[in-house]
Amino acid sequence: MQAVVFENGSVSMVERPDPRPRSGEALLEVRMAGICNTDLELLKGYMGFSGIPGHEFAAVVAEAPDHPELVGKRVTAEINLGCGHCPTCLTAGPRHCPNRTTLGIAGKDGAFARYVTMPVSLLHEIPDNIPDSEAVFIEPLAAALEPGQQLHLTADMSVLALGDGKLGILSACALRHQCPDIVLAGRHARKLAIAAAQGVATRRHDSHDGLAAALLEEFGRFDVVIEATGRPEGLAHALDLTRPEGTIVLKTTTFAPTPVNMARVVVDEITLVGSRCGNFKLATAFLRDRLVDVSPLIEAAYPFTEFPQAMAAAARPGALKVVVEF
Amino acid sequence: MQAVVFENGSVSMVERPDPRPRSGEALLEVRMAGICNTDLELLKGYMGFSGIPGHEFAAVVAEAPDHPELVGKRVTAEINLGCGHCPTCLTAGPRHCPNRTTLGIAGKDGAFARYVTMPVSLLHEIPDNIPDSEAVFIEPLAAALEPGQQLHLTADMSVLALGDGKLGILSACALRHQCPDIVLAGRHARKLAIAAAQGVATRRHDSHDGLAAALLEEFGRFDVVIEATGRPEGLAHALDLTRPEGTIVLKTTTFAPTPVNMARVVVDEITLVGSRCGNFKLATAFLRDRLVDVSPLIEAAYPFTEFPQAMAAAARPGALKVVVEF
Repeated sequence: MQAVVFENGSVSMVERPDPRPRSGEALLEVRMAGICNTDLELLKGYMGFSGIPGHEFAAVVAEAPDHPELVGKRVTAEINLGCGHCPTCLTAGPRHCPNRTTLGIAGKDGAFARYVTMPVSLLHEIPDNIPDSEAVFIEPLAAALEPGQQLHLTADMSVLALGDGKLGILSACALRHQCPDIVLAGRHARKLAIAAAQGVATRRHDSHDGLAAALLEEFGRFDVVIEATGRPEGLAHALDLTRPEGTIVLKTTTFAPTPVNMARVVVDEITLVGSRCGNFKLATAFLRDRLVDVSPLIEAAYPFTEFPQAMAAAARPGALKVVVEF
Repeated sequence: MQAVVFENGSVSMVERPDPRPRSGEALLEVRMAGICNTDLELLKGYMGFSGIPGHEFAAVVAEAPDHPELVGKRVTAEINLGCGHCPTCLTAGPRHCPNRTTLGIAGKDGAFARYVTMPVSLLHEIPDNIPDSEAVFIEPLAAALEPGQQLHLTADMSVLALGDGKLGILSACALRHQCPDIVLAGRHARKLAIAAAQGVATRRHDSHDGLAAALLEEFGRFDVVIEATGRPEGLAHALDLTRPEGTIVLKTTTFAPTPVNMARVVVDEITLVGSRCGNFKLATAFLRDRLVDVSPLIEAAYPFTEFPQAMAAAARPGALKVVVEF
């Protein structure tokens, strides 16, 4: 099969043998896959990754030795593959298994390939009314919804989504159903408009300092700030905008260590919550029920054979979602 | 009156006019005061402080114009003085008032002086069975108890207090009443012995790496780590010892920004909780009921007139609590 490989900072298209599903696994024929900022980080060296990346996808079950009823179903999959027998797997599930692999991120070949194998237990069937181009958002939408699962968000809280990249937009559009006054703040009018069209209050400024001053003037400090800037300085910026005893949800996974004024965190008794993946069932229901419109987030679609060009497009500053299709 | 002043990194004893209590305030005659690590940080430039420091003390009410019944009572006081009319003061109290001053730390002369004034609303009477030398621990013991107020700690949680300074020892000795298996880890046999004598499990090693390896081998990663190292690298060390979806309580307020691998926090979905002051009523009850023995924490007592020598003793590496008495 044709597959994308990241190795030593370069992208190449290679021929690989088709993978074979083991017991409990399905062989999936990928139909569409999305390029995530994490993929850009992996190419820069994050996680010391080399192999086939890709963890946002829609596919059709081609083979499922133990579950023939699944063949032909359209699915996506959760990305953390646990060992299945450690205490974490047996109690809390595979997401934080210390022996886990992560699809297209760590120790497990991903979906930027014609075929990928996955444990049947991690598959989620895609409802008929969600096209492939939206189904590739189930994984990032689940991540965007996760702050509402980790925190007890209530409707009267003041919540700021900081950063108007894909995750910031998705977070604001999804969490507004819990917190109707959520504000999305960033630098890009074009991106903010996507959330504004879905009923999110948005604020724009060219500089962080200007943005922070305007937000503080209008709203004061927020109860909850979702840090989705994708930048190492994002946490420091979020701290400027969080009230004492407030909470910052950390979404940014950057390669570089972040210098943080921890005395501010201690003196103001702020809580920082790391937040990564989310609940696929909830994200699927949000798309099925049209609670979030992800279609304006697609910047471009490329044929899979043009993956290097798709990757270059995804890497352009300000790019939204780039997908590849088979 | 005689008072201690910190200015431009130096300590001096000066003569100052006696302060006068305003309406709602009491004039307190200080009997004993403790030197805190925060005082050492203030002298190094933290908070840009200059003035009379001191925020751990036992005193007698000398005057209280609106509350004559208080005169002669032995008291200590909470240290955050709110403005009394902002939304924070009116709803959550003075601790996080944006206009607050903090006794001996920011904008309010402290207790390293013969007299200090404080709002009557912040005073706490000291029960008769708590001597002055223990009452000076009410403020730090309240801070040590605070993680149990911020988190829902239960008896089956694995909890590590990291750092065997005063706050680490107090935290372990106090929180063992909620979490009997709490472990205190550090480098100093003499300090760890103080907690061990009160029933706390302790572990010692000369290096962080050695300590971390031994703790992981014996306990695995902890549900909750209380970071009380007082060092900028403490958070990184705590991260090594915290399980996925676990919690780190941050107690260290150092002057220097801390470089943190925030990707670890995000990927492992760890929660960081800043923690500063605590509940004086609870701390007073703990001392009254002999739930914690603070007396072995006193390293030395100096006459107030020898404050510079007391400060030098408190600054010695490994020093425990140094108090000054009038």
